[in-house]
Amino acid sequence: MHEYQIQAIGVIHSPYKEKFGTPRQSGLISVQSKIELFSPYNQIEAFKEIEGFSHIWVNFIFHQALGSQWKPQVRPPRLGGNKKVGVFASRSPFRPNNLGQSVVRLVGIEQKPKSLTVVIEGGDLIDGTPIVDIKPYIPYVDSIPNASGGFADKSPEAKLQVSFSTEAKQQLAAIADHQEFKQFLEQVLSLDPRPAYKNSGDTQEYGLNLGDYNIRWKVSELRIQVMSILPISV
Amino acid sequence: MHEYQIQAIGVIHSPYKEKFGTPRQSGLISVQSKIELFSPYNQIEAFKEIEGFSHIWVNFIFHQALGSQWKPQVRPPRLGGNKKVGVFASRSPFRPNNLGQSVVRLVGIEQKPKSLTVVIEGGDLIDGTPIVDIKPYIPYVDSIPNASGGFADKSPEAKLQVSFSTEAKQQLAAIADHQEFKQFLEQVLSLDPRPAYKNSGDTQEYGLNLGDYNIRWKVSELRIQVMSILPISV
Repeated sequence: MHEYQIQAIGVIHSPYKEKFGTPRQSGLISVQSKIELFSPYNQIEAFKEIEGFSHIWVNFIFHQALGSQWKPQVRPPRLGGNKKVGVFASRSPFRPNNLGQSVVRLVGIEQKPKSLTVVIEGGDLIDGTPIVDIKPYIPYVDSIPNASGGFADKSPEAKLQVSFSTEAKQQLAAIADHQEFKQFLEQVLSLDPRPAYKNSGDTQEYGLNLGDYNIRWKVSELRIQVMSILPISV
Repeated sequence: MHEYQIQAIGVIHSPYKEKFGTPRQSGLISVQSKIELFSPYNQIEAFKEIEGFSHIWVNFIFHQALGSQWKPQVRPPRLGGNKKVGVFASRSPFRPNNLGQSVVRLVGIEQKPKSLTVVIEGGDLIDGTPIVDIKPYIPYVDSIPNASGGFADKSPEAKLQVSFSTEAKQQLAAIADHQEFKQFLEQVLSLDPRPAYKNSGDTQEYGLNLGDYNIRWKVSELRIQVMSILPISV
């Protein structure tokens, strides 16, 4: 009783290969992702008139949190990871039913003989996330600019400056869309992917998979230096 | 595969007893509703810090549409009910997975020894709707005032003037919270609950259950006259 069976209508293909480095909200980073629709949802009829909307809601399952038991309280990264709030006062993946929703910019629909893909920008979903619904963003209903946002009232400021080692610069130059990838990488790193409790004395070297590359980087004061950019070995 | 079991965390108690008369979006009518949380979600810890948010997302199941097979296209009431759009370009209840989401104003949390209730304002949910998640509305992420809203770009204007027959006035006066109820009734009727294809020559008398009352009314040009307001016989 009170149980419902839902199924994925599609899956997301995004450059975020792991939770580390994935933006914590949508709209922070302007890279594109693609939603591949499964049959029978991969028909263009089901998307008629969607081009009139600049933004859409993507409803998804936080699949990487599926195995975990929900807890009444969570520690949001915005609060430094050391203060607890109620799970229903958070957008944490570790929540009853593991349902997520993100508003993203609609770039367009790509139709091929045997596939239908929704191209979006500004997503915050890890590659492989199951999609359970797509809805238009209706500004007169969904946009409440003067709502108060509690502990998440302000947009996180990009606070780290990103630079590249000589080695990283050379590796970057060898990438086909290197200007685009550089811009993307700078956006991701400037948001500081590290857990919020890390203090300024952190000299650890980090690794991060982004798109097809493994990025090595470290932080010094308010600067991030990229050490290397190497293809992920398959 | 690709299937997920979700369950209701609570249920809504609202004055909307049937689809007819229920606002088509949230925020249009300022009446209060209550979300009753089920165990084990009825613990105040799970809502800590939620008071800092003025608005919350309510994720729900369109339970009255559960029996129906989804179709790729729907006829939104905003388009007069005679033009079809893709189901993913609509907020129709008749959609794959029957998932709905509405942003509502958070009035407060009511805690009693054996129950926990979230009081909201501006809901558009039919009484008895199963709730599957509650999330904070984060304005810097969720609010996109200059998004374009396709065929649903503008807020529906209240277009009908509401008046009361002598009989209805007397019946109204006998209701305990009659001023409040009158205001609520006027809001609901001014939005014109009729199917959009009804033309101006419509002289039919309509019945509508709202809160504990059955309302009889009819339309003449741009005016709605309330004929009677009688307690729903149980």
